[in-house]
Amino acid sequence: MSRPRVVIVGGGFAGLNVAKRLGRLPADVTLIDRANHHVFQPLLYQVASAALNPADISKPIRSVLRRWQNVQVLLGEVDAVDLAGRAIHLTDAEVIAWDYLILAPGSRHCYFRHPEWEALAPGLKTLEDAVEVRRRILLAFERAERAPSAEERQRHLSFVVIGGGPTGVEVAGALAELKRYALRRDFRRIDPRDATVVLLEGGPRLLPSYPKSLSEKSGEILRRLGVDVRTDTMVTRMVPGLVEAGDWSIPTDTVIWAAGNVTSPLLRSLGIPLYSRGRAVVGPDCSLPGHPNAFVLGDAAAFADPRWKGGLPGVAPVAIQQGLFLGRLLRDELAGRPRRAFRYVNKGELAVIGRGQAVADFGRIRLAGFPAWFTWIFVHIAYLIGFASRVLVLFQWAWSYLTFERGARLITHPWHPETPPGDR
Amino acid sequence: MSRPRVVIVGGGFAGLNVAKRLGRLPADVTLIDRANHHVFQPLLYQVASAALNPADISKPIRSVLRRWQNVQVLLGEVDAVDLAGRAIHLTDAEVIAWDYLILAPGSRHCYFRHPEWEALAPGLKTLEDAVEVRRRILLAFERAERAPSAEERQRHLSFVVIGGGPTGVEVAGALAELKRYALRRDFRRIDPRDATVVLLEGGPRLLPSYPKSLSEKSGEILRRLGVDVRTDTMVTRMVPGLVEAGDWSIPTDTVIWAAGNVTSPLLRSLGIPLYSRGRAVVGPDCSLPGHPNAFVLGDAAAFADPRWKGGLPGVAPVAIQQGLFLGRLLRDELAGRPRRAFRYVNKGELAVIGRGQAVADFGRIRLAGFPAWFTWIFVHIAYLIGFASRVLVLFQWAWSYLTFERGARLITHPWHPETPPGDR
Repeated sequence: MSRPRVVIVGGGFAGLNVAKRLGRLPADVTLIDRANHHVFQPLLYQVASAALNPADISKPIRSVLRRWQNVQVLLGEVDAVDLAGRAIHLTDAEVIAWDYLILAPGSRHCYFRHPEWEALAPGLKTLEDAVEVRRRILLAFERAERAPSAEERQRHLSFVVIGGGPTGVEVAGALAELKRYALRRDFRRIDPRDATVVLLEGGPRLLPSYPKSLSEKSGEILRRLGVDVRTDTMVTRMVPGLVEAGDWSIPTDTVIWAAGNVTSPLLRSLGIPLYSRGRAVVGPDCSLPGHPNAFVLGDAAAFADPRWKGGLPGVAPVAIQQGLFLGRLLRDELAGRPRRAFRYVNKGELAVIGRGQAVADFGRIRLAGFPAWFTWIFVHIAYLIGFASRVLVLFQWAWSYLTFERGARLITHPWHPETPPGDR
Repeated sequence: MSRPRVVIVGGGFAGLNVAKRLGRLPADVTLIDRANHHVFQPLLYQVASAALNPADISKPIRSVLRRWQNVQVLLGEVDAVDLAGRAIHLTDAEVIAWDYLILAPGSRHCYFRHPEWEALAPGLKTLEDAVEVRRRILLAFERAERAPSAEERQRHLSFVVIGGGPTGVEVAGALAELKRYALRRDFRRIDPRDATVVLLEGGPRLLPSYPKSLSEKSGEILRRLGVDVRTDTMVTRMVPGLVEAGDWSIPTDTVIWAAGNVTSPLLRSLGIPLYSRGRAVVGPDCSLPGHPNAFVLGDAAAFADPRWKGGLPGVAPVAIQQGLFLGRLLRDELAGRPRRAFRYVNKGELAVIGRGQAVADFGRIRLAGFPAWFTWIFVHIAYLIGFASRVLVLFQWAWSYLTFERGARLITHPWHPETPPGDR
């Protein structure tokens, strides 16, 4: 195997970081993704709440990887993985052989036993999701302005966020700020501040992965922002215009789902037993048991770590570190050096709640309020500068004339390789 | 009539400029638009060619007008105008009475006797149009990269622009630059520079409204950029994968329509005879004959001007000047002063073709090449600064925390007031 073929499925944090590391190795690398862009998922809620543009938090995968001639990017959908035959099958019948396979397909929302809820309560995984949530939120205010009755107006002005993890907390906080400040003076028949934001969490506390003190703090901050926080509240029924949780119910048209994830169905084609939420159990080097050249990374993998019950969490830092780890592993392997084991370094967790309000858990150091928010904005601005390279809208425009670059190359509509363009 | 009710239909250049002028008058103003945002249409082709983001060239109508308490904005679709009864009917059965009516609904593409071409060859009137064209262009390159045969690859790499007016010239130029520079190093199996851009014009020359010397110049510049310019070429047949013009034909999946406009069907409900392209003939004060309090502005109006054959052109400066004119007219009228006649001041025409390449007609002064381009970028940057107020993506983010503003409040998906959110 002089020049191994490496196939990476998924251009998220894990897949993209592997590909970057392989750019200088004697290997032919193919990265396949359904979208033409990588998305900075932790900021999707800011697109959903109209604070950022889709293009601000995304970048075309092939432009990120363009400098490495041994890396090619394909827009396509993987249908099945053939572990024994060392090949993957795309939905349009193309078959790609691999010597090393890296699966990082990510996850989608899980509606438990209620798939019919998906249309009523979209979640936030892709740019399309975020634009759809933004559309629903903004449209709700427009409909309230034109509502013929007080009852209907209040239904349009009721927003329900389901799930009290970081995404749910961030969305609820952003909604509270949107109605209180950004839209304040824009309407004549309604006062957007009359809108109700409800955050429902099935468990006993918000941010269950954080220390209890920060969970309490985040609930306090949200309540101060006017969010109706309800823990121990499991949604039992959802129909158009209504959400029910046991005895409690609220008429609403705008529901956002942040309650559960399940791994991409692609993993089912592996023919191996899957762990909870559809994840593949991997060994210390992130490979599948019995298939040392097939790896699963990110939130599609169940990586055992004594410090984390149920395996490492499905967060960006785990995916990034696993991507970088696998890049090093393949470099070592091609140089004839032995594999090492992956070890997750937890640098802490941060969730922003509102203007000047966040919670942060850095192990011994726990921050809440302004210090946490300041840390958050610093971390993310620092990241975005390196990420987006498209700082100034106006300069970017002049820039595209000087450097021949384009900044907004996004395919955001539903896309199927089989469908001719005129036939959406 | 102590406090007249003014109803404006359409939030384009004409409607928005009327509304701004009425903000300080003793009148109750209602502006109705199908979209929640005003679009700077002359730059739509830059969104279509991925140079600018949708949010860069648009702004929520209600935030533009928020400072005037006597102006309200409604998101809605007008179904019919009742001239005799002085009311308009919205599609959701709401009826709004008016003392003054200003119709500025704009126009859509006209596919002549081939409505079936619309799905194959979208045009550029709305943000949704531009995002759809961008999607098709970018997807064509992705499909070419994965094409199984040379024939199919070439079909994906063929782009046809129909119509040699300013929009067609600008789109063709932008496409030529996109394939030559922006995508140059991003693909492995194809060379984007192999893409073909064809510009078809039915008449004898490009930019028919410009002086002949500039028409020739623009053709020269486009040919130098690698565009296949074909004048006197009328499309006779279009099916998925193929465009035909007489004997000539080209296999292609990506066609952009810039060939003809027709006024919004709303005008048909007026029950008056309409001029060519569905326009309403208006008098010197822009009012409908026999209906002195009902006005039609912008490209929905046929305004007779001896200097322009067939009436004033459907361009942004006419709409802006008519909007400002009508604002003054209503101010005078409410103050008991007589009406004046509208007079269009032609400040010139500008069309950009590529990097450092444009043509400009300022009457006696005619520019081509870099001087015209420099003028163009200066005019548009000056405009955009005032327009978008969202200069720095990163600063904007920090800014939204400091000022409580949001910059990306766009509803870009197809939208119907009757459809519940979960039921698109």
